[in-house]
Amino acid sequence: MEKREFIYEGKAKQIYATDNENLVIIHYKDDATAGNGEKKGTISNKGVINNEITTILFENLEKNGIRTHFKGKLNDRDQLCEKLEIFPLEVIVRNIIAGSMAKRVGIEEGTKPENTIFEICYKNDAFGDPLINDHHAVAMGLATYDELKKIYEITGKINTLLLKAFGDEGIDLVDFKIEFGKNAAGEIVLADEISPDTCRLWDKATGQKLDKDRFRRDLGSIEEAYIEILKRLGAK
Amino acid sequence: MEKREFIYEGKAKQIYATDNENLVIIHYKDDATAGNGEKKGTISNKGVINNEITTILFENLEKNGIRTHFKGKLNDRDQLCEKLEIFPLEVIVRNIIAGSMAKRVGIEEGTKPENTIFEICYKNDAFGDPLINDHHAVAMGLATYDELKKIYEITGKINTLLLKAFGDEGIDLVDFKIEFGKNAAGEIVLADEISPDTCRLWDKATGQKLDKDRFRRDLGSIEEAYIEILKRLGAK
Repeated sequence: MEKREFIYEGKAKQIYATDNENLVIIHYKDDATAGNGEKKGTISNKGVINNEITTILFENLEKNGIRTHFKGKLNDRDQLCEKLEIFPLEVIVRNIIAGSMAKRVGIEEGTKPENTIFEICYKNDAFGDPLINDHHAVAMGLATYDELKKIYEITGKINTLLLKAFGDEGIDLVDFKIEFGKNAAGEIVLADEISPDTCRLWDKATGQKLDKDRFRRDLGSIEEAYIEILKRLGAK
Repeated sequence: MEKREFIYEGKAKQIYATDNENLVIIHYKDDATAGNGEKKGTISNKGVINNEITTILFENLEKNGIRTHFKGKLNDRDQLCEKLEIFPLEVIVRNIIAGSMAKRVGIEEGTKPENTIFEICYKNDAFGDPLINDHHAVAMGLATYDELKKIYEITGKINTLLLKAFGDEGIDLVDFKIEFGKNAAGEIVLADEISPDTCRLWDKATGQKLDKDRFRRDLGSIEEAYIEILKRLGAK
């Protein structure tokens, strides 16, 4: 697979064209941002670690019937992925209340709700990725009601699979953010990554944060936390 | 009906007990606030006008099968109402995009979406009445999924009835906020008020704002706008 022209640069990844119009190469960077880009830095080897973690998790999901964009790991920092038209939505699942939700409505971090909380945010830096609901998304032309229904269905299945994948390794999956896109055939496909950048992961035994909150909140030992997640998920 | 002890004071109304434990008297004040209480003032005769407008609209809704708390107008500023346990939710309907939604996601005021937008906010001044979704409301114990389903069903019917009530008088019902409560029998009942304080109302011919945005945005002729709405709705 030949890496061709640069297409797009996000906060943590770059996307390149390939010689197949339905495939792209996604390059994982060490750049880290928080607070809608207000805090910037790098986490050593993050790109390498998150490429590996996402590979493990997306292979797990594919094996369990979830359609993902992942086609294969090419090298330390590059993945071959299906080219998608991305929905400009961050789809968030909360098993334990933390972060922005805790702050918005005044609930203590660590509170476990009886239901699973699904959220969508409008992916738009200029407006700070605001929380929206399904009616907003439809009114804004971001997705149809039917597409949202499918996205929530798939997201629920992904949550069940990830709760097991992390739970088996002694890790609480507190919350996570995923993105979806549509492929050339119109199928809704899981995109982006699943990593300590996009999940809150707490050690079940100690409560230790093993995710990007170590960067956001200046807790130190960031790379170590990411490596710990990679080790527990069984990297060779 | 005897007016007994003071129970509660909101931004625009006071509530008093009566000699019947299932009934309260709601007293309409002239006080006006905006921006979550940051801007304070009074609008001359607002209490009198909104008591009358709410009476007309709640009688219209009752006649058309909507259960409301309204039992009767007692005098210029007082209504007799069913006592309810209020859901701490602001239920918002948007037929045209304006106000907080326009600002949150960067859509021009006046944009007409193809769908009707329903929203809920957590009624809590300390957190600025934040937008939430159904999963948040359930997790926070504010309502059950079933109660929310019923609330949206009733709200959709209310929107249809209000669009006609205002539309027939040459007024665009841009958006409105309502509240619900449960009565002693566990029924879900429309509470609060429907008035230029709680609706955005634009003259269809001129686009003139005939609602509380005149106060929020210092547009002047506030009392006149409220009286215009009352007149069009056919006050005697």
